[in-house]
Amino acid sequence: MQTVNNPGDLEPIWQAYREAVRAGGNPHTLYREMVWPHLLALWRTAPQVYPERRSFRVSIHTLGTSPEATTLAVLGTGAEEVYVLHTEETRRHLDQLEADANRRVYPKEVHKSDVAQIYQQVYEILKRLPKDTPVALDITSGTKAMSAGLAAVGFFFRRHYSNLQVVYVDNEEYDQELRRPKAGTERLMILPNPHEAVGEVDVLLAQELYEKGDFTGASGYFSGLVKQTGRQEYVLYATLSEMYGAWWALKFEEALRKGKSLLERLGNDPYLLHPLNRQRPRLQAQVELLEEANRFLDSKDLGQRRGVLAVAATLLHLSEEEEHPSLKALYAYRALELLLQERLHRHGRRAEDPRLSPEEKEALGQELARILGGEARVGDRLGLLDVMAFLRVLGDPVLKGMSLQEVQGLKGVLQARNQSLLVHGLEVPTEKEVGKVAKGAKGLLRALQDELRLQPSLEPAPLEFWGRREE
Amino acid sequence: MQTVNNPGDLEPIWQAYREAVRAGGNPHTLYREMVWPHLLALWRTAPQVYPERRSFRVSIHTLGTSPEATTLAVLGTGAEEVYVLHTEETRRHLDQLEADANRRVYPKEVHKSDVAQIYQQVYEILKRLPKDTPVALDITSGTKAMSAGLAAVGFFFRRHYSNLQVVYVDNEEYDQELRRPKAGTERLMILPNPHEAVGEVDVLLAQELYEKGDFTGASGYFSGLVKQTGRQEYVLYATLSEMYGAWWALKFEEALRKGKSLLERLGNDPYLLHPLNRQRPRLQAQVELLEEANRFLDSKDLGQRRGVLAVAATLLHLSEEEEHPSLKALYAYRALELLLQERLHRHGRRAEDPRLSPEEKEALGQELARILGGEARVGDRLGLLDVMAFLRVLGDPVLKGMSLQEVQGLKGVLQARNQSLLVHGLEVPTEKEVGKVAKGAKGLLRALQDELRLQPSLEPAPLEFWGRREE
Repeated sequence: MQTVNNPGDLEPIWQAYREAVRAGGNPHTLYREMVWPHLLALWRTAPQVYPERRSFRVSIHTLGTSPEATTLAVLGTGAEEVYVLHTEETRRHLDQLEADANRRVYPKEVHKSDVAQIYQQVYEILKRLPKDTPVALDITSGTKAMSAGLAAVGFFFRRHYSNLQVVYVDNEEYDQELRRPKAGTERLMILPNPHEAVGEVDVLLAQELYEKGDFTGASGYFSGLVKQTGRQEYVLYATLSEMYGAWWALKFEEALRKGKSLLERLGNDPYLLHPLNRQRPRLQAQVELLEEANRFLDSKDLGQRRGVLAVAATLLHLSEEEEHPSLKALYAYRALELLLQERLHRHGRRAEDPRLSPEEKEALGQELARILGGEARVGDRLGLLDVMAFLRVLGDPVLKGMSLQEVQGLKGVLQARNQSLLVHGLEVPTEKEVGKVAKGAKGLLRALQDELRLQPSLEPAPLEFWGRREE
Repeated sequence: MQTVNNPGDLEPIWQAYREAVRAGGNPHTLYREMVWPHLLALWRTAPQVYPERRSFRVSIHTLGTSPEATTLAVLGTGAEEVYVLHTEETRRHLDQLEADANRRVYPKEVHKSDVAQIYQQVYEILKRLPKDTPVALDITSGTKAMSAGLAAVGFFFRRHYSNLQVVYVDNEEYDQELRRPKAGTERLMILPNPHEAVGEVDVLLAQELYEKGDFTGASGYFSGLVKQTGRQEYVLYATLSEMYGAWWALKFEEALRKGKSLLERLGNDPYLLHPLNRQRPRLQAQVELLEEANRFLDSKDLGQRRGVLAVAATLLHLSEEEEHPSLKALYAYRALELLLQERLHRHGRRAEDPRLSPEEKEALGQELARILGGEARVGDRLGLLDVMAFLRVLGDPVLKGMSLQEVQGLKGVLQARNQSLLVHGLEVPTEKEVGKVAKGAKGLLRALQDELRLQPSLEPAPLEFWGRREE
């Protein structure tokens, strides 16, 4: 047999084959005799793989009526463990395939149109493998259903099996006269992952994370997109994500900085048509809210009511989003306390050092006794319940507006704050307790909102993209 | 023309066609004349779709050298907006396709082997559509690369476009004599999603969530798997996930209940070979830890040192896992306080009501003055720094073992606790501050661990599955 070291060496062999067919021979028989042994010899020593050879540990192939292409795929992937999904009809090619590929294959029979069965078979193989196993799924041969099924399951599993590749044997040239792909032009193609080939699809992942509230994750993808696509517009989405990320981490200063920078860029020439400009009213309102929050936190002046509103609304928003009861309670308690601190401040008092006159002390003692339905001691500093009672004594309209029953309903949870495992105690709040605190805080927030005519939306702005139609 | 109302009506037409071919006619020309008009008429009124017709708004098709199959796919999907990915060679079929399908199509040229180009084209179409648009990707026609590329991108995008379906036209019967699929046996197949067809792949999603620490999400998938697969073994994974979910939410009682139920089942006959039994030693140790935590929290007896250790270790674990600085600090502060409360308890004292003798009060004042480098006032109840100082006065070996400098290093952060936005103040702790608190708490935890010879691992047990090879 002639030595075939590279695909070009097959050219004269193909010419000879063509002559023999022209002379009236059976094309199939002649191919097996004249061409196939040389092609096989070439692939046994030097498989043609595009873009380059990789070492696979496992390969899974669909087998149709032409086993030669599958043989090349087996040689090209070079896996130790080879599974072949064949049909009742194509089982008869298995022996030849094993002999040609010089490898033991594990056959698995499937119906040629049963896609679900292919999924199941592939899953059975994959589930026993470590997640980083290099696996090739070869869709070269078999019916459309078989190939499509294998490709489908391949890309479906890519999320979990990081080294899984879909491959197929392609031909560069087709011999029209012989109605056959020309030998020597075969290549095992490793299908690129859509994710690698179209970097911009990261937008979808970023959006998924953003919508789930993972702003740090979203920002990472958006920043990556700037590099991948060279499109500076993605910076603005990253900044937006970072703004919310910082805000929910209570880093108000950082959130404000990001928000301002975002608005500034959105107002600049290159970004005037940026889709996020559609969210400008909401963003502007949120950045103003962050301004207020920062002004308040910097000055620590409880007279900055808009700032108090901004921080309390943030805490209540976080309480609502949070799932863990201890944290949910913690945010709600702090919101309630802050709103009470603000009201107390209107009377020039502070809970840590209330400076009660003897008359006030007595009146507070009486109010507390009414609420508690028994004796009450007034300490040096006022706890949550004390502040509520004292505000009633002082004639605060909102607290006065609550019935004795309402205040009594809160007494248990207010006294329990310090008993919480996350504060100084060992209790974990129940859902019911959290609900009561949150309700109390929301009532106070509403009163402040009505007074200031400021009802900000804390919902993150929806992501807007170029040319996307309305959902 | 004969009326064709259902596929069976094509039978006599096919027989006539076969006769005509046998009589020596050109099979292709005869097909176009004798068969195709009837097949087309049938699909125009009653497309054959399996498992059932759906309304698609958009369809994308690869176009190879036989436009008839693609025409059927266009009629079968019935979309308003039809995109056709054709090659240089197959562009010439577009007019016929439009005429036959009686629909305007949007052509997009691709190279027959350039998979990345197909991804890009599909992405360009999809990215402008609302995420819930019903889209059909038809892989019937075109080269292997084109079909595989379209299928790949389809299953890749399924995660983001919930109503995207991959479809193809299949034939049930092949006429061996005519070497052609028999007319009337064509069906547009809607490819099932691997996820729907193989319910068990939810294991992979559950595992992904578990490994990310989303135990609630993981438990949801595992519970669903019991129903989908009928395999009771998945209950144990759900229970395991729920145990950690409750634990990290500080619901110690629920966590213990789940843990005990898990261990009990793992010890029972049907589950003796359950793969999670490989994690039994770790699980047993963790359940014991939860027992200790609960006993302590129920009795509130700080003398239950193993329980204190369990709760403090949990708080420090949460502090480490948490990303938001306010929460990170909160967990660390509480761990430190709890560990100090425990040490104080050894001396029969409580921070809220320390009952200091005049001598103790003086000694504490002096120690505080040394730490603060100035005057110090001793109040009714002891704050974190007071407790540390008082423990030094009392000769506590661990606190005594710290240098004055070390204690001084902590003074700022300890005094700042109440100033935190999540406690009573308006400050957000910095990373450096959090680090100091956590370091202090870890030192105390280590001392307790050494004393009790108990160094529990709080890492969630890795998921073990049947027959999976080692990673």
